[in-house]
Amino acid sequence: MKRPYNFAAGPSTLAIDVLQEIEHELYDYQGTGMSIMEMTHRSKAFMQLCDDTKALFRKLYSIPENYEILFLQGGATMQFSCIPLNLANKKKCDYIITGNFSKKAAQEANKFAEVHIAYDAKENNYSSIPTQDELDLSSDAEYVHICSNNTIYGTQWKSYPNTNSIPLIADMSSDILSRKIDVSKFGLIYAGAQKNLGIAGLTIVIIRKDLLQDTENDVPVLLQYKTYADNDSMYNTPPCFSIYVFFKVLSWIEKQGGLDVIEKRNEEKAKLLYDVLDSSDFYIPHAQKEARSLMNVTFNCPSVELNEKFVEEAKNEGLLNIKGHRAVGGLRASIYNAMEVEGVEKLANFMKNFAERNRK
Amino acid sequence: MKRPYNFAAGPSTLAIDVLQEIEHELYDYQGTGMSIMEMTHRSKAFMQLCDDTKALFRKLYSIPENYEILFLQGGATMQFSCIPLNLANKKKCDYIITGNFSKKAAQEANKFAEVHIAYDAKENNYSSIPTQDELDLSSDAEYVHICSNNTIYGTQWKSYPNTNSIPLIADMSSDILSRKIDVSKFGLIYAGAQKNLGIAGLTIVIIRKDLLQDTENDVPVLLQYKTYADNDSMYNTPPCFSIYVFFKVLSWIEKQGGLDVIEKRNEEKAKLLYDVLDSSDFYIPHAQKEARSLMNVTFNCPSVELNEKFVEEAKNEGLLNIKGHRAVGGLRASIYNAMEVEGVEKLANFMKNFAERNRK
Repeated sequence: MKRPYNFAAGPSTLAIDVLQEIEHELYDYQGTGMSIMEMTHRSKAFMQLCDDTKALFRKLYSIPENYEILFLQGGATMQFSCIPLNLANKKKCDYIITGNFSKKAAQEANKFAEVHIAYDAKENNYSSIPTQDELDLSSDAEYVHICSNNTIYGTQWKSYPNTNSIPLIADMSSDILSRKIDVSKFGLIYAGAQKNLGIAGLTIVIIRKDLLQDTENDVPVLLQYKTYADNDSMYNTPPCFSIYVFFKVLSWIEKQGGLDVIEKRNEEKAKLLYDVLDSSDFYIPHAQKEARSLMNVTFNCPSVELNEKFVEEAKNEGLLNIKGHRAVGGLRASIYNAMEVEGVEKLANFMKNFAERNRK
Repeated sequence: MKRPYNFAAGPSTLAIDVLQEIEHELYDYQGTGMSIMEMTHRSKAFMQLCDDTKALFRKLYSIPENYEILFLQGGATMQFSCIPLNLANKKKCDYIITGNFSKKAAQEANKFAEVHIAYDAKENNYSSIPTQDELDLSSDAEYVHICSNNTIYGTQWKSYPNTNSIPLIADMSSDILSRKIDVSKFGLIYAGAQKNLGIAGLTIVIIRKDLLQDTENDVPVLLQYKTYADNDSMYNTPPCFSIYVFFKVLSWIEKQGGLDVIEKRNEEKAKLLYDVLDSSDFYIPHAQKEARSLMNVTFNCPSVELNEKFVEEAKNEGLLNIKGHRAVGGLRASIYNAMEVEGVEKLANFMKNFAERNRK
C-alpha cells in the first residue's frame, strides 16, 4: 500500500526517515542489546540521549545558554496550570486570546492568579491576530501569555507583541521548530511534542533561568519548574520513548539542513494551498490573510454537504484527516514540518479539481 | 547478538512478542496506512484501541464495574499529589511507610492534607511489612495509603491491611498485574506503566466510582480525577503510544493464559533466587523472609567490592542491571512479568557459581 498523506492536527505525521530509524534500532539501541523502550532512565545510554537531545535542540533553535530546556508530561494543558502557579501565584498576568487553547489557558490561570484579558478575538470568530495597538497590556503583569499558532482556527502570530520588560510566554505547541525565532524575546516557551516534535507524552519547556523561582509550598512537586531544572528532568521516570523520538525528529531536521531549509519549505507548502484559496471563488478561507498560519490551513466549501464530500473524496485519494476541528467545523489541512511537499501538491491539485467539479 | 536478560527495576524488559508486534505494525496500524504514533487520538481506530485496552485490563485483573479505569501522565509521583487533592483536601489521611516511595507519597500529601503516619518501617531499614497489629490506623481518616511492593527494598505486602470501611489506596507501580488481587478491597489503585504494564509515560488509576467527587476549585484541571472520568481520559491528548504498548502487554498476558499462569510463573521465578539466598552462607538477603517481594529480589555480597565484581561479571554473562538502588546499595534483580524463567535460571546459576568462586 502506498503511504497516505496524513493531514491530522496532532498527533500527526512523522517523517518516514524517523520511523525507519525507530525500526532499525527497535531491538537493540546502539549495541546495548535492548530496545530504548526497555532501558532504565538512569542508564548511561539514556542519560546521554537526553543530553544529546537538549544540545541538538539548543543548536537548531538557537536557544541561548541562559535558558533551561525541561522535559515534562501532561501536554500543553498541564502548563496552563504550571505557568500561573510558578510565575504569578495570586498576582496579575495578561492573556491574549486568539483561539481555543489560549482561552483554556486563561480560564485555568484564573484559578491561581489575577487574570487580565488583554485582547480577545472572539468577535471575528478567531480569524485574526491583534496588532500591537489593539492590546490592552497591564503595566504590572507578571507575564503576558500568547498562543503562537492557533491549530483550530488556522491563525499564527507573524511578529510577536512587544511587552517591554514583562516576560512573554508562548504556547508553541503547533509551530515550534517550524521557523526561526528569537528565543531571547521570551520568558518561557512550551509545546506538546505531538505536532512538530514527535509523539504525544512529552512536553517541552524552554525557560529563562532567572524565572526558575521557588514556588509556594502548596504547589504539587511535579508542577514546579525547579523540580525539573534541579534534577535534569529526571526527578521521576521521564517519558523515555517520546524523548527518543524527539531526538530522531531533531536529527532529521538537522539532516534536512536545519531551520533555514524547514522554514523555507513550510512557506512554500502553505503558499501552494493559500494560492488555491486566493484564486478560487469556491472556497471560503477562515483566517484573515495577514493572520494565516503556515501550519494549519482552514477553509470551507460553500456548504456543509460539500465539506463532507470533500473529506470523503480526499480520503479516497490518500489525503487523510482534512476535517476541521469540531469547535469550528469546515476543513483543515495541517502541514507541519514532517508533511512532504508532494503531499501538499497533491492536496492543492485535489482542491482545484474538487472546486471545478462542484461549482454550481 | 543474543538478547541479554535485563533485570532493571524500571523502565524494564518487555516480552519479545510485544516488541515483535510493535515492529510488525510500525508503518501501518491495522490497515490505516500510518503508524500508531502518527494517529490522532480522536480517530476511530485509536478510540477503539483505548476501549479495547480498558476492557482487556478489566477482564484480566477482574476489575468490577463500579470502578473506573483512567489513563494519566506524570508517573506514580504525580499521584502523590492527586490523591490528597482529590480525596483528602485539608482532611486527615493515613500513610503506612514501607519504603522510599510511600515516604515520598506521605511527604507530598502533607502539603495538602493532615497526614498521620500509621506505621514506618525505617527502624529495620525497610526490610519488613507490618502486621495488622502494628498499624496505628485513625478511625477518621479519608483513606489509608500503602505501597504494595517496595521496588528499592524488595518487600511486598502478602495480604493487605484491614481498614474497615475506610478506602484503601495502593501504589502498585511495581507489582500490578503480577498476581490476582481482590480489587473490591481497594478505593483506588495506581501504577506507572514502565514495570509491569509496558513503557514509561502512562499512569493507570483504578478508582471506585463513588470516590470521583468534585474537588476544590483550586485543583489543577489535570490533577482532578473527574476530568479523566468525564472525558474518557481524553480531555487532552493522552500518551497514545504508551497506551498502545499497554494493550500489547495485556494481549501478551492473555496469550500466556492470564493471571493464573503469570502468578504461578512469578512465584517460580522468585523461588529460584530465594532458594539460592537461603541455601547460601555467602549472600545476605535484605528483606525479611515473610516480607519478600516476588518482583524485586534484594541482597548483598559480603563486601562492597564483591557487589561491584558481581555486577560486572553478571554483565559479561548477559545479566544486566543487577545493581541495587543508590538509596540502599547492594544488588537487586527485578523479575517482573516479562522476565523469562530462563533468565532467572541463568542468574540463579550465576549466583551459585559466583558464591563458590568468591567464598573465603
